[in-house]
Amino acid sequence: MNTYGHTFRITTYGESHGKALGVIIDGCPAGLTIDEAFIQKELERRRPGQSKIVTQRKEGDQVEVLSGVFEGKATGTPIAMIIRNKDQRSKDYSHIKDRFRPSHADFTYHQKYGGYRDYRGGGRSSARETVARVAAGAIAKQFLTTKNIKITAWVSQVGHLQLHTPYQSLDFSQIEQNIVRCPDPVMAEEMIDLIKSVRKEGDTIGGVIQCVIQGVPAGLGEPVFDKLHAELAKAMMSINAAKGFEYGSGFAGITMRGSAHNDQFEKNEAGEIVTKTNHSGGVQGGISNGMDIYFKVAFKPVATIMRDQDSVDEQGNDVVVKGKGRHDPCVLPRAVPIVEAMAALVITDFSLRAISPL
Amino acid sequence: MNTYGHTFRITTYGESHGKALGVIIDGCPAGLTIDEAFIQKELERRRPGQSKIVTQRKEGDQVEVLSGVFEGKATGTPIAMIIRNKDQRSKDYSHIKDRFRPSHADFTYHQKYGGYRDYRGGGRSSARETVARVAAGAIAKQFLTTKNIKITAWVSQVGHLQLHTPYQSLDFSQIEQNIVRCPDPVMAEEMIDLIKSVRKEGDTIGGVIQCVIQGVPAGLGEPVFDKLHAELAKAMMSINAAKGFEYGSGFAGITMRGSAHNDQFEKNEAGEIVTKTNHSGGVQGGISNGMDIYFKVAFKPVATIMRDQDSVDEQGNDVVVKGKGRHDPCVLPRAVPIVEAMAALVITDFSLRAISPL
Amino acid sequence: MNTYGHTFRITTYGESHGKALGVIIDGCPAGLTIDEAFIQKELERRRPGQSKIVTQRKEGDQVEVLSGVFEGKATGTPIAMIIRNKDQRSKDYSHIKDRFRPSHADFTYHQKYGGYRDYRGGGRSSARETVARVAAGAIAKQFLTTKNIKITAWVSQVGHLQLHTPYQSLDFSQIEQNIVRCPDPVMAEEMIDLIKSVRKEGDTIGGVIQCVIQGVPAGLGEPVFDKLHAELAKAMMSINAAKGFEYGSGFAGITMRGSAHNDQFEKNEAGEIVTKTNHSGGVQGGISNGMDIYFKVAFKPVATIMRDQDSVDEQGNDVVVKGKGRHDPCVLPRAVPIVEAMAALVITDFSLRAISPL
Amino acid sequence: MNTYGHTFRITTYGESHGKALGVIIDGCPAGLTIDEAFIQKELERRRPGQSKIVTQRKEGDQVEVLSGVFEGKATGTPIAMIIRNKDQRSKDYSHIKDRFRPSHADFTYHQKYGGYRDYRGGGRSSARETVARVAAGAIAKQFLTTKNIKITAWVSQVGHLQLHTPYQSLDFSQIEQNIVRCPDPVMAEEMIDLIKSVRKEGDTIGGVIQCVIQGVPAGLGEPVFDKLHAELAKAMMSINAAKGFEYGSGFAGITMRGSAHNDQFEKNEAGEIVTKTNHSGGVQGGISNGMDIYFKVAFKPVATIMRDQDSVDEQGNDVVVKGKGRHDPCVLPRAVPIVEAMAALVITDFSLRAISPL
Repeated sequence: MNTYGHTFRITTYGESHGKALGVIIDGCPAGLTIDEAFIQKELERRRPGQSKIVTQRKEGDQVEVLSGVFEGKATGTPIAMIIRNKDQRSKDYSHIKDRFRPSHADFTYHQKYGGYRDYRGGGRSSARETVARVAAGAIAKQFLTTKNIKITAWVSQVGHLQLHTPYQSLDFSQIEQNIVRCPDPVMAEEMIDLIKSVRKEGDTIGGVIQCVIQGVPAGLGEPVFDKLHAELAKAMMSINAAKGFEYGSGFAGITMRGSAHNDQFEKNEAGEIVTKTNHSGGVQGGISNGMDIYFKVAFKPVATIMRDQDSVDEQGNDVVVKGKGRHDPCVLPRAVPIVEAMAALVITDFSLRAISPL
Repeated sequence: MNTYGHTFRITTYGESHGKALGVIIDGCPAGLTIDEAFIQKELERRRPGQSKIVTQRKEGDQVEVLSGVFEGKATGTPIAMIIRNKDQRSKDYSHIKDRFRPSHADFTYHQKYGGYRDYRGGGRSSARETVARVAAGAIAKQFLTTKNIKITAWVSQVGHLQLHTPYQSLDFSQIEQNIVRCPDPVMAEEMIDLIKSVRKEGDTIGGVIQCVIQGVPAGLGEPVFDKLHAELAKAMMSINAAKGFEYGSGFAGITMRGSAHNDQFEKNEAGEIVTKTNHSGGVQGGISNGMDIYFKVAFKPVATIMRDQDSVDEQGNDVVVKGKGRHDPCVLPRAVPIVEAMAALVITDFSLRAISPL
Repeated sequence: MNTYGHTFRITTYGESHGKALGVIIDGCPAGLTIDEAFIQKELERRRPGQSKIVTQRKEGDQVEVLSGVFEGKATGTPIAMIIRNKDQRSKDYSHIKDRFRPSHADFTYHQKYGGYRDYRGGGRSSARETVARVAAGAIAKQFLTTKNIKITAWVSQVGHLQLHTPYQSLDFSQIEQNIVRCPDPVMAEEMIDLIKSVRKEGDTIGGVIQCVIQGVPAGLGEPVFDKLHAELAKAMMSINAAKGFEYGSGFAGITMRGSAHNDQFEKNEAGEIVTKTNHSGGVQGGISNGMDIYFKVAFKPVATIMRDQDSVDEQGNDVVVKGKGRHDPCVLPRAVPIVEAMAALVITDFSLRAISPL
Repeated sequence: MNTYGHTFRITTYGESHGKALGVIIDGCPAGLTIDEAFIQKELERRRPGQSKIVTQRKEGDQVEVLSGVFEGKATGTPIAMIIRNKDQRSKDYSHIKDRFRPSHADFTYHQKYGGYRDYRGGGRSSARETVARVAAGAIAKQFLTTKNIKITAWVSQVGHLQLHTPYQSLDFSQIEQNIVRCPDPVMAEEMIDLIKSVRKEGDTIGGVIQCVIQGVPAGLGEPVFDKLHAELAKAMMSINAAKGFEYGSGFAGITMRGSAHNDQFEKNEAGEIVTKTNHSGGVQGGISNGMDIYFKVAFKPVATIMRDQDSVDEQGNDVVVKGKGRHDPCVLPRAVPIVEAMAALVITDFSLRAISPL
């Protein structure tokens, strides 16, 4: 299903080399100010060709709002946005028409859809699909801004290069100051160098994005299946190339004793109930407790490499898949706005689906 | 929402110390043989009091099937199951009536539900809720058996004790041979000793459960938001105390190069298209590729400890939460059947919701 | 699917002669006072054996609330209710085991579920299923009472006997004063006599239930597919034996000119915007306008008659289906609380799913 | 919510005078041949300006397929279609900017959406929205054709002019031979004359559309809430101006005795189990029985009339709403393809959501 969300709900469409990609947002509260320039700006952060360490494809990614907005305000009816693909017919994908690229979705789509698939650039399975998520996320962010909720993501690891600084000590204003989107300028340079060297080898590399959501009031999230962190996990894992998710103390919390891991409550100077530590990552029992919500997402190395690889074709014959074209050596920098967009969609939906007590 | 699944859909209810817990399964194919003894057996694996390293509470957890089964077969109508709580009124929870236990959901439920909550044993937020999942999962497993799909979970880490053996080299028949549910007998003993010593200190500890799903045909899963691994992530993260999820190469795959990480296709002796390696964890582009699906789930140390802890009450006054009662020093052994149940629900749902090509 | 509602959502289970019927309500606002005696009272209105013109079966229909309520208040977690069937095993249904009763669902269930069905009393297709709806509707009514919304249904036609009085001139306090639930005492007697005479002939008869919903504020309902009256139509048509639905001017409005049919707006003495007439039935563009919402539901004559009928068995052989047992000669009197329950579920759901403008 | 369907699911957007209207279809089986010319042809049947008895607005309604189709076949991914509005900015709607047209949705939208609404031509509440339904329905029809299921609708009543001929005696090939879409040429002429005379008076009139669905196999539909006829009722009542729905014997069946109303089963010459009569309208217990499914939908007179009407503005002041512009004197002829489209969506969804017995 190509729909995400319960009350604030998006439905997306489009293939990598089809006519257009787009999204319908259903459930946007009437009266929200919609800033189209901001949507476009978010798309720029995701856009190919924005720097030397991402794919050099040139895509304008111009968004057009088709409905649901009148005189600058949401009307409560569906907001449709479209991003037309440019020159999508000009590329030649005949070399992969009937062969399965390793660790891509060519084979699995072939199996699922009975052989009917748009093989050009991976069709629907391409990360190009995320352009619709970022457009929708930009509107979710505008909603969250009215609630003083702020979402910040950054690259904290590329290959073995890992930023260990706790997020509280980072200067988030630095994130957009470098092309890898790491808030530590020194580490950023190292990451950029690593990505460049990997690209020169025709290879690719993975990494980790961290994200923190600040300003979420206590009480958001649904118990049992739709726990706040479970939805975040699903939303993040649904991003192309994601392989792992952890929140709060995550995998590292395993070795702690409960007595050290538990977050004790206290009243702060403002009279609010807070926790002294935050191993819980802002979520207890699936519901926000008012503290920062933070998590990590692991991304694998991009499957498209500039080397020849052995594979098979649709008939099972041995073939070679050629490395050609222009691709990302590392998905991380462009995935930062995607992680933020998905986080914004999750929190907006929880905010709107909550049922008020009588 | 207390519903999980799109086509094979469960809805659960019940609180830790209410009258009963239960589940309605909607979407079970007519004609499935329902073995009630098997359901009961799965509940036994999750039951408190089953060994020395889990809580010593005595709960029979007797399941009763109320509908949807006639002469041993599913009729296609909703299957309702109920597990009555025994002696739920006899316990005294007045000591936590208006105070928030650290790292429990008392505070967040209080905030979400406007102060209306059943505080006894955590009410709906208690892991007791998972009894309904295991009952439903037992029916999903019976469905998957008809498709030759097999799900196996085990404890691979407790605190710092980590089993590094690849799952292919493990003897799964050993899992149920020891009370910690680790397939390596030597490691199992160490884990048991660690849990015992932690319990003696009135403390708790976390760990990791691994799971492998074998026999899933290529083509299951939905692209974009409902990717197979994204639903697995949500399902696993919705289990009480879960903090992290990874599949395939997971977080460790970050440091690999794409050229090493990619799984090349080949035709095996049976003429099937398979991959030479399986860093993808059996899922590519959110859809199964026919290889084993495997993943890890991190669980935090249990929040209930046998020590006094500082906290606040509903009015924000400083209070002490007493450590008392009988609780699990480590949630891992009892979480094994829960992980399996959730995996079974995910795969069954994907199996039934798939739309056949024309 | 056995679920109804988007935000206030019920899921039901149970067969006519199974162990129990029941319902889970998900989405009930925390803090709602739950009066179990009221739920029971509503079940009494639907109960068999309550008068001489309904089936003489004796069913106690005792409801038990299993979860979601603590100290008399909803906690916001699922409210499960169960109604056990009494003596369900004692009846003999072997005479219809493999033959299809005319205008019942025996044949269609047989076709849909591959021959796996509980044939006893129609199994899941029995109107006994509506006991769960009435229990859930009783809670919805308690919610609506807090909003000053009132739902009233009555029998306005049995066979050719039709009450033409506009509802504004009826004395609703008379509805429960006679066993047919018609607010006009004279017409009620005629209807009762007709039903008695039809029963003596071993036959059955249909009729119409009218319903009015008062106090709904302007602005409830969702445009396009989930229009308020479209959901009412679905909810009513989902009741056993329903054959038609109309609201406002309904089928009779066809012959009017637009100039006569249009409801002109004016400001009333209280300063509220109202309409001078109400052909719209309180709904315009799928959204309530603050006026009374009123509609009619047509019910066919009950399919179970006390006469022998020709039919076929599962193998297609000619057989005779014997008329035996105790059944309703007219479903109308007992359907009144069912219509009200479904209306209450619809309005409660719309009330809770509305997204507030910013 | 602007989504309809469970497995074959459409989501629509767009306002009467916005940039575009459109639809995303999710769940179309891969491999379905998509004939774009057929989609366009269906839009022509709904198009304004097609004859003298409908609105004289000129709208080209050119559909563009944006995704989900590759080399003429559905790929299983979302099919997006867009219909751009032409010259939508040129019209002047300032005369209704802040006043509520009688029996339109201006007031209710104003109330629901906090005053944020696109007043031009009714915005989202305009029947222009149905263009997206017809486009989606055209694809559903192409699916149903592969199953030999055929849907036919026609105008059976305009004002007091009612066609009493049973549908079995009608010549469906005549429906598209006249501009009112009534299969009886003589009655068609009378209806056309009536509509013309009503239009001359600046007035409007309602009517009835009948529809028959032929070729549905036994076993489609979901018991309890999502009964086949209940979904049909919702789908039909969701069409602009619909006021009533009945299927099979409908309201007229009320006065029949059960012994006459029941449809007895027999085996036909082909060895199939059929019913001798079809008062059930092809549906028993919410599930198709293999016989023709037939129903009626009542439509009110169009609310837009060419006469001045009293009303109020947003502040509650008395105002006059002028009759101006070009509008339909009778919605029936153009509603025929809409009824068919909704019926096609319902049957396609039931066909795809059915769970096969084991």
